[in-house]
Amino acid sequence: MNIYVAFDLSIENKKRLKEIIKDNKVFYNIKSDKGKIPDKNFLKSEIVFGNVPASWITKSKKLKWIQLESSGFGEYLDLDFQQLKNKIIITNLKAFFSKPVSQTILSGILSFYRGIDRFITLKDRKKWIGDPLRKEIDILSSKKILFFGYGSINKKLHHYLKTFDCNFDFINSKTNSLLINKKIKVADIIICCSPETKDTIKFFDKKKFTLLKKDSLFINAGRGSLIDENELIKKLKLNHIKGAILDVTQNEPLKSRDPLWTCPNLILTQHSGGGSRIEILEKVKFFETNFIRFCKNQTLKGIINLSKGY
Amino acid sequence: MNIYVAFDLSIENKKRLKEIIKDNKVFYNIKSDKGKIPDKNFLKSEIVFGNVPASWITKSKKLKWIQLESSGFGEYLDLDFQQLKNKIIITNLKAFFSKPVSQTILSGILSFYRGIDRFITLKDRKKWIGDPLRKEIDILSSKKILFFGYGSINKKLHHYLKTFDCNFDFINSKTNSLLINKKIKVADIIICCSPETKDTIKFFDKKKFTLLKKDSLFINAGRGSLIDENELIKKLKLNHIKGAILDVTQNEPLKSRDPLWTCPNLILTQHSGGGSRIEILEKVKFFETNFIRFCKNQTLKGIINLSKGY
Repeated sequence: MNIYVAFDLSIENKKRLKEIIKDNKVFYNIKSDKGKIPDKNFLKSEIVFGNVPASWITKSKKLKWIQLESSGFGEYLDLDFQQLKNKIIITNLKAFFSKPVSQTILSGILSFYRGIDRFITLKDRKKWIGDPLRKEIDILSSKKILFFGYGSINKKLHHYLKTFDCNFDFINSKTNSLLINKKIKVADIIICCSPETKDTIKFFDKKKFTLLKKDSLFINAGRGSLIDENELIKKLKLNHIKGAILDVTQNEPLKSRDPLWTCPNLILTQHSGGGSRIEILEKVKFFETNFIRFCKNQTLKGIINLSKGY
Repeated sequence: MNIYVAFDLSIENKKRLKEIIKDNKVFYNIKSDKGKIPDKNFLKSEIVFGNVPASWITKSKKLKWIQLESSGFGEYLDLDFQQLKNKIIITNLKAFFSKPVSQTILSGILSFYRGIDRFITLKDRKKWIGDPLRKEIDILSSKKILFFGYGSINKKLHHYLKTFDCNFDFINSKTNSLLINKKIKVADIIICCSPETKDTIKFFDKKKFTLLKKDSLFINAGRGSLIDENELIKKLKLNHIKGAILDVTQNEPLKSRDPLWTCPNLILTQHSGGGSRIEILEKVKFFETNFIRFCKNQTLKGIINLSKGY
């Protein structure tokens, strides 16, 4: 079999991959702009590891399985799923990013409560405030936390937050809208971590942002499109909420003139939430597990259902 | 009875205190420099709420109970405990600070692993790095954590860290020194949170700092005197360790020329670890509980043993 790897691997990870796939052939395409015309090596391959353009997929006559190197697969939603279903399996990384993303969110939350963001800025300015700051910081305990979505990231975060004796509530795009408003009004922390679907785009709109409590924290680690960013920017610039953590933004990378850069009380984690020193190694290991299953004709982990969109 | 309050209270907290003590009389002394000559109102009081100078205590003929507004009581260690023991009870706040301090420590740890400190600085500079940063951040999971001391703060932190599937080890000043060195060498995170005693002063000296792993984090939230600060500064400036979090420092406040201000990878929380919006209210509540016990002749919470020093 031929395996087409669509993203960059270090020498160590290439070695590791070679040990896994043994006598099978591997092709690398590491160009970030992959163009509309499929790479000829892709057309020769039965297996793809990584994210190739959706337009390539229907042009292959050999392709049997794509192991994405992401959890999201928004770029493949327009494929004719019914037609592909019996020919090609697509697997994603499933809950792969739940630990790192939820740790980034928790880190941001604790930073706001314990003042770490301010202490970092004060150190830059060599400014000691000390005691008077004690009244201005807070503890995470007993906060009301509202999750929008309950996928693997929010599940993991829920698990971490339980240790802090917080109170939890949950909504999704199907929740009754009066109930949604009621729950937003009382939440200390709102965590938006949902995939992009037609029902979730701009879910957090002007009206919902208006309901936020004065000392609430708003977090988005789902997709930039889930919120009306301009409304959040207004809230932050007017100090109408305590703060926000955005791992995802409407535009990535942010242009130098983007108003987000100058928003107070905003932690911008530049879509790094899923990252870690061992991210690529772990992806290779995930592929390894599925490759062994594929060779033994066993059911793969993380098979996605394009018609559901998540 | 007369009650002498040795620290500042807001109008709301004074009201609350008044409701607790009912017909008993309350005196306030909020001067930060309390001098060597005892306040005459102190000399009239049976109960003290707050920390008065140690030298005042032996001069009082009426004093029966001091409720400190701190956990530490280093300033009282030179009192003749045997002589006081049958006359005056001193209570401290016990585990009062365990939640806020341990949350500050956890916040700092997660900031280093998830890069929050860097993202805050990047935002100040309106600089997008994005993807390449993913390789440079890490997750807290599976780290080897070494606690120096196992008082209420480290106990609470241990509880929080268990959720992250870390590995734990413990030392104190009595641990065999070869074993101490062995444990320091393998630790990813060292958390120093011990009271100041003759055995703990400068416990983390040049030799111990030399043993730290290249990517380790060092944390001190005990007393500034427990470590050789100059040696830690060297380690940080030479990038010999991943980072440090200091809630306590040898000098507080730090002077503008203190070399700590210019140490890279250092989070300085300016002795705010025990602070929170509700700190003073909680202290009044703690006093309330003990006051009711005192009136009923019940054993008080947090009685300290000066001869043990903690």
